[in-house]
Amino acid sequence: MLNEYDCWLQKRKIASNIKAPETVFIQDSLSGETAAQAVKEFTSGIQRLLGFLPKVVSLPVEQETAAKENAVLLGLFSGFEKYPSFPAAALSNKTAESFIIKVTGAQIIIAGADEAGLLYGVFRFLNLLALGEIKDGFELIDSPVSPLRMINHWDNFDGTIERGYAGGSLFYKDGNFSYDRQRIEDYAQLLASTGINRLSINNVNVRAKAKLLITEEYLKHVGELAAIFRPFGIKLFLSINFGSPWSLGKLPTADPLDPSVLEWWKNHTALIYKYIPDLAGFIIKADSEGEPGPFQYNRTHADGANMLAKALTPFGGTVIWRCFVYNCTQDWRDKNTDRARAAYDHFMPQDGDFADNVILQIKFGPYDFQVREPVSPLFGALKKTRHVMELQITQEYTGHQIDLCYLPTVWEDIMNFDTAFSDTDKRAAIKDLIASNKKDYPNIEGFAAVVNVGLDNNWCGHTLAQANLYGYGRLAWNPAVTAEEIADEWSALSFGAGEAAAKKVKEILLKSYGAYEKYTSPFGVCFMVTPNTHYGPSVEGYEFSRWGTYHRADKDAIGIDRTPSGTGYTNQYSPKNAAMFADPSTCPENLILFFHRLRYDYKMKNGQTLLQNIYDTHFEGYEEAENMIKDWKALKDSLEEDVYKSVLSRFEKQLDNAREWRDQINTYFWRKTGIDDAKGRKIYE
Amino acid sequence: MLNEYDCWLQKRKIASNIKAPETVFIQDSLSGETAAQAVKEFTSGIQRLLGFLPKVVSLPVEQETAAKENAVLLGLFSGFEKYPSFPAAALSNKTAESFIIKVTGAQIIIAGADEAGLLYGVFRFLNLLALGEIKDGFELIDSPVSPLRMINHWDNFDGTIERGYAGGSLFYKDGNFSYDRQRIEDYAQLLASTGINRLSINNVNVRAKAKLLITEEYLKHVGELAAIFRPFGIKLFLSINFGSPWSLGKLPTADPLDPSVLEWWKNHTALIYKYIPDLAGFIIKADSEGEPGPFQYNRTHADGANMLAKALTPFGGTVIWRCFVYNCTQDWRDKNTDRARAAYDHFMPQDGDFADNVILQIKFGPYDFQVREPVSPLFGALKKTRHVMELQITQEYTGHQIDLCYLPTVWEDIMNFDTAFSDTDKRAAIKDLIASNKKDYPNIEGFAAVVNVGLDNNWCGHTLAQANLYGYGRLAWNPAVTAEEIADEWSALSFGAGEAAAKKVKEILLKSYGAYEKYTSPFGVCFMVTPNTHYGPSVEGYEFSRWGTYHRADKDAIGIDRTPSGTGYTNQYSPKNAAMFADPSTCPENLILFFHRLRYDYKMKNGQTLLQNIYDTHFEGYEEAENMIKDWKALKDSLEEDVYKSVLSRFEKQLDNAREWRDQINTYFWRKTGIDDAKGRKIYE
Repeated sequence: MLNEYDCWLQKRKIASNIKAPETVFIQDSLSGETAAQAVKEFTSGIQRLLGFLPKVVSLPVEQETAAKENAVLLGLFSGFEKYPSFPAAALSNKTAESFIIKVTGAQIIIAGADEAGLLYGVFRFLNLLALGEIKDGFELIDSPVSPLRMINHWDNFDGTIERGYAGGSLFYKDGNFSYDRQRIEDYAQLLASTGINRLSINNVNVRAKAKLLITEEYLKHVGELAAIFRPFGIKLFLSINFGSPWSLGKLPTADPLDPSVLEWWKNHTALIYKYIPDLAGFIIKADSEGEPGPFQYNRTHADGANMLAKALTPFGGTVIWRCFVYNCTQDWRDKNTDRARAAYDHFMPQDGDFADNVILQIKFGPYDFQVREPVSPLFGALKKTRHVMELQITQEYTGHQIDLCYLPTVWEDIMNFDTAFSDTDKRAAIKDLIASNKKDYPNIEGFAAVVNVGLDNNWCGHTLAQANLYGYGRLAWNPAVTAEEIADEWSALSFGAGEAAAKKVKEILLKSYGAYEKYTSPFGVCFMVTPNTHYGPSVEGYEFSRWGTYHRADKDAIGIDRTPSGTGYTNQYSPKNAAMFADPSTCPENLILFFHRLRYDYKMKNGQTLLQNIYDTHFEGYEEAENMIKDWKALKDSLEEDVYKSVLSRFEKQLDNAREWRDQINTYFWRKTGIDDAKGRKIYE
Repeated sequence: MLNEYDCWLQKRKIASNIKAPETVFIQDSLSGETAAQAVKEFTSGIQRLLGFLPKVVSLPVEQETAAKENAVLLGLFSGFEKYPSFPAAALSNKTAESFIIKVTGAQIIIAGADEAGLLYGVFRFLNLLALGEIKDGFELIDSPVSPLRMINHWDNFDGTIERGYAGGSLFYKDGNFSYDRQRIEDYAQLLASTGINRLSINNVNVRAKAKLLITEEYLKHVGELAAIFRPFGIKLFLSINFGSPWSLGKLPTADPLDPSVLEWWKNHTALIYKYIPDLAGFIIKADSEGEPGPFQYNRTHADGANMLAKALTPFGGTVIWRCFVYNCTQDWRDKNTDRARAAYDHFMPQDGDFADNVILQIKFGPYDFQVREPVSPLFGALKKTRHVMELQITQEYTGHQIDLCYLPTVWEDIMNFDTAFSDTDKRAAIKDLIASNKKDYPNIEGFAAVVNVGLDNNWCGHTLAQANLYGYGRLAWNPAVTAEEIADEWSALSFGAGEAAAKKVKEILLKSYGAYEKYTSPFGVCFMVTPNTHYGPSVEGYEFSRWGTYHRADKDAIGIDRTPSGTGYTNQYSPKNAAMFADPSTCPENLILFFHRLRYDYKMKNGQTLLQNIYDTHFEGYEEAENMIKDWKALKDSLEEDVYKSVLSRFEKQLDNAREWRDQINTYFWRKTGIDDAKGRKIYE
């Protein structure tokens, strides 16, 4: 049965297709703590799944053990050179963090190109074992497509989490570090088991006391946390405040071109690395929603980022510079400013200006994690600047982990978006661009994502929202993995391979995103959410605000014209995509109101008007939410009572929410148009 | 020049029309601390206005001093029986708190029916002196029309103030009592100088630690505060939580008919009175917006109030029971429930059920302190239940003391509202009903009002908002005083009698309410404010909420039909008023959208459509806000720089706010209708 706390690493005795690996031989040259962790994970994983603890034997690298039966061999590729049965392909592919799993008779080899690779191999082996896929002759060589697979915490020093819906912070409480070491280890294990290798531990809005995180008083705690994550192959980033030289250092300025500022950062960075010698670097939200940045000193983002990069260079650290820069004091009367244009307009002119150890972090869409946005035109366009894509696992706009919203569905769509950057017929989907070093290619080096965990026993508030955390890791490792494959894996790992519940949960997951999208903001129009909280509908909640997110619905039409006849946003895309988006007949209909201002009587591809399509999707979305509850209720007898009830109570709240969305949206448009639903369903006046 | 802190009690040497009263004779029988305060106020007031400190001489009551020249006689009516020049009228009218001021040659008599009356007489004399109205032959006999003249603090124990816009609490900080004794004395002086005699010191939402206010740990502080206010004739009320028997007392219930609950309140009340023997009583918000109350136990409000009344009876205390009871979880789809009906529907059936020491506190209108609401139909209707009217000095919905909004303007309208309760031609305006004991008459015993003060140096945030605090006291004393009279007095006291600045400020005050009303929610439709904060526009902000305040605007019409063809709210009024409100042609137009659902093309009395009137008032309101700035700027050279600048900065913010209101309202209706302004002014799409 399901133990929520254990997530996808359930203790559940499985029927194995292989002989039990009673002895684990490890290469005696394996000395690092990550290798030790791999061995520990292997033995405890075997106990978890097969019910016994294997014996561990250290083995000289040169000793031939291929003949040993009933044994597992753990090591590095380099230690297997003499093994006749070791695949040459693995030896030739020594990319960082790669691994091989090979089952021959009762002998199992798990080897990594490095210690982290070994750890990932062990976790993958255990998952595959739990899924029933490990059998004689099994062979898998794998390596992460994305070098950077990062989790961002928006945890505040007071213990709250910005956009957190699963309890308080794992790290902080009441203005200080406060954590349960075992819980952090368990968290690191969960993350590493999906391939996460970087973690930022504090909110990118570095305010109040959080500014002191990089002072000696608190750095020792950061060092302790880094030590817990280290064996799991996870390095830490710190979110920093660009104004630190004056807020902490008492300098008169934070101007990135002022030598005293660079000097301050150099000294301060040296201090930080004294406590965390393998710190991955800094992440920074600058000139964004009120945070300080180089604009205050009439400097560019490159000036700001490169200054920090200089301070980090001696320590091998990286600057992750967020591109969430836009005018957040827009006047709604101003129809010329288009927030969607902002990231591209700010950063594209600086392509090539950034130092080698600067990585831009770009939200997947031009707005802010809406349920449906086009992929940011910076992807495919940036050619000379390192960059990663930012996703949001925490469900800020997608239901607060009250509503079920299985995010890999939309992530898959994003991965499949063809940037058409070369303007040839060659396909260049986002997933094709993910890589570290394809020459003359606009590489995306990976992903960062705002996480959905907190102190709740089930980590994510909604137990099924664990699938999003798992899914992010899998997809960051390999963006070609499909949403269905992830749902299949996660459901089987969590509810038991082959179990009817797993099958049903997978189905529910796969229907959930579509339902949420249907009953919320229609056709990519975005931002009809309640201001501030971002849960539930408020059709005009952002309509007259300073945030630049308007739909401008009147009695005849809705939407912003972002074609060349409007704000020209479409021209930020490659010519092929620009043309595709600019024409309503070729624009994907799930985004048609992002790009176009359309009359309510615009005919959609199904022959119905836009208005009727809005009504239809909202009635359907609600019905789909009803069906999810029915599906879940059918599982009553096959689930732990606590899991069943906690998820059911969320589905019930979701249904209330779906009803509010359905009715507020439908009533809003009915009041604007006076046009009834063609099918005669109830729309409240 | 103006010292903001001193409000209307400025230290300003005036040209007196009388000889300086060098000696103050006081009746030697005057022993109370309020009499002592009156003497102190007199001498310090003379020093403040005339620049010298009079000599004080105690005088036996029976000693004839009428012949003394250049003297002031302070005393009680009873001490003046033998004085030939003492007006017989005063002796025959001994209502509590009344006073006489009489100037004969160089002799001045100020006498009270009681010590409080003497204090009020002194304050009035000093104000009249400052206004230049005291001269030979002056005689004034006055008494308060309203026995209860109360200030409500919504101060929280953490030091914040619910709906406070002038700094933190005078009384609390960080979960404890924290006050500056001198400041509290100064505050008591300000209040007493306008005739306030009751004060509740904590928020009616008694939550968290504030529940402990009535425990011994904190009661000693309440006692200290009571002692500071006592000489000023001000008695304290405590806001209490109906659930105290279980939250504090650990009883299993707070059921008002459970004997153990009454017993608990009796014992606890005795404890409270041990610390504050002259406590005025309890004020309570029960079954309202989530606060506990008798409904939880299927008991009536009378059950709840009378139980508390029993506990207070031995100590002469009073229960003030708020009538702000409505369904705050309304479904916006539900068009049958009408929040406007709630107070009447809840309380009218219980008229006569309440104990003698229970007073109902009824908000002036059926909603919640909106800029324009009809007067609650409970006034005039309640005949057998003691009650007072609740006003709001703090500008929750009227501009947060950023926008200037001189409230006596609307209070005067309220006072002049004819309840027509007897359904004869006899006028029975609210101001006619204010009294303590007119037989067979639906008396209103006075007023309670949520105050607008905090720790800001000028008490009210906006210096000109002091006029609202002053005006409330004056109007609570005598509801027939007009807004213009109050503006005249306050401006002259604050800026100097006869000064050009005083005249201009008076004009600005008198224009301010109209301007605010024009640029905000049109024609009494209410609640187009930003949710939660209640500052600035959000036309649909409450449209789909649970608060029961909807305008239901669609493409053709706006408003709620509250006539008998709709919710029937108009029938809660006396037949004459019911008929008047139910007919759009006789309904006052400033309330027409409170009572009626009207098409945008409805013709108003000026011959223009409703829609055009909405456009017109919003353009005009903004222009009036512009004019107030111009008027203020003309005062630059005649004002203290700090006063000039702080008020100017508020006017500038007000202009931004007026612009937002104008444009959001106009754009909202333009988008709904597509109809342009007839005068071609700019409406943003």
